[in-house]
Amino acid sequence: MTPTITAFARSPDRGRGLARDMRVRWALEEVGRPYDVRLLSFSEMKEPAHRRLHPFGQIPTYEAGDLALFESGAIVFHIAERHAGLLPDDANARARAITWMFAALSTVEPPIVDRSMAMVLERDKAWHAERLPILEDRVRVRLGELSNRLGDAAWLDAAFSAGDLLMVTVLRRLTGSGLLEEYPNLAAYVARGEARPAYQRAFADQWAVFTGQSPTGR
Amino acid sequence: MTPTITAFARSPDRGRGLARDMRVRWALEEVGRPYDVRLLSFSEMKEPAHRRLHPFGQIPTYEAGDLALFESGAIVFHIAERHAGLLPDDANARARAITWMFAALSTVEPPIVDRSMAMVLERDKAWHAERLPILEDRVRVRLGELSNRLGDAAWLDAAFSAGDLLMVTVLRRLTGSGLLEEYPNLAAYVARGEARPAYQRAFADQWAVFTGQSPTGR
Repeated sequence: MTPTITAFARSPDRGRGLARDMRVRWALEEVGRPYDVRLLSFSEMKEPAHRRLHPFGQIPTYEAGDLALFESGAIVFHIAERHAGLLPDDANARARAITWMFAALSTVEPPIVDRSMAMVLERDKAWHAERLPILEDRVRVRLGELSNRLGDAAWLDAAFSAGDLLMVTVLRRLTGSGLLEEYPNLAAYVARGEARPAYQRAFADQWAVFTGQSPTGR
Repeated sequence: MTPTITAFARSPDRGRGLARDMRVRWALEEVGRPYDVRLLSFSEMKEPAHRRLHPFGQIPTYEAGDLALFESGAIVFHIAERHAGLLPDDANARARAITWMFAALSTVEPPIVDRSMAMVLERDKAWHAERLPILEDRVRVRLGELSNRLGDAAWLDAAFSAGDLLMVTVLRRLTGSGLLEEYPNLAAYVARGEARPAYQRAFADQWAVFTGQSPTGR
């Protein structure tokens, strides 16, 4: 059964692939599953019809038959659990990959989102100039720790996994900040993720939504 | 094999059970598994020996044989996947419970932690008085959405699950803020979680660490 995901009709990232539907698109491409996309305006996201799918009025959602899910992490996990390619077979390696999924979303992403939110929502506040370096230092703490752990490895725990997929998309939210570039091994790690054919197909499809062209035919 | 978890030797929450080891303790109690606890000082958490277990230098960790995990969400999931009591058998209900695990940690917890961090780290800043109501309104947005979804149900998706376990511990981080009390069904939901015998055993054990008494014998 072909699942349907939701995405922004007009992504605020202007097609840079930073919205959270990108994670689900990429996961589906990694495992070679087709999917349909339903685009939503900002007002549609907050209407009762969408709230029934997603209580927090966000994208993405995932519908397949009588199953409806929200939360990009949960959707990526659902895909990874059902199709080969995103989680290792070995039980311990699988548990560690899942740990990196949670680490990406619970430990690394929050300070990155805080910085982004301050750039958008608090830019006109008197405190913004003084507070921004504090936020950036909080991001640097996590990037430094992640950089130390990654070292010169290609991926966080041996083979590419859903943990890397989420971590790369989290780190990509720093695009344009200059912070990622302070950690060359992390910048190379993100580039390694972006170079994967599945990533490129997913990126092209979300870019086609932004530019209003029809998605790449597959 | 009895797993070993790590926890604060001196929790900054003064025994209120708000530290993240509480999630793991509660999960292990729900599934009836014994465990050992290794207590760490703040400086030990940042030393290389602990960083090898937890790259971000935090608690809790989970060690069982040659498996070492970090991230409370991942550890709770690992426990829930291996023992009955925290995830439903039905595949769709299981996927929805996992969705609530991610929702608790990725969508509901971040604004709650932001508020807590501001109370601790930015209390002396000139902007604190003006910024705090903004942070509290961000928390209220999520609480309102969660309250609407929960309605008069006992748990988020039929039976109690690991999703509820994480959500209750996330909401408990608002203790003392007065915010939870604005949503009577959420306050009742948290009280329902706290009333579970497994919660009470876990709470007593972390309280025993804080007071320096020996844990309740079991």
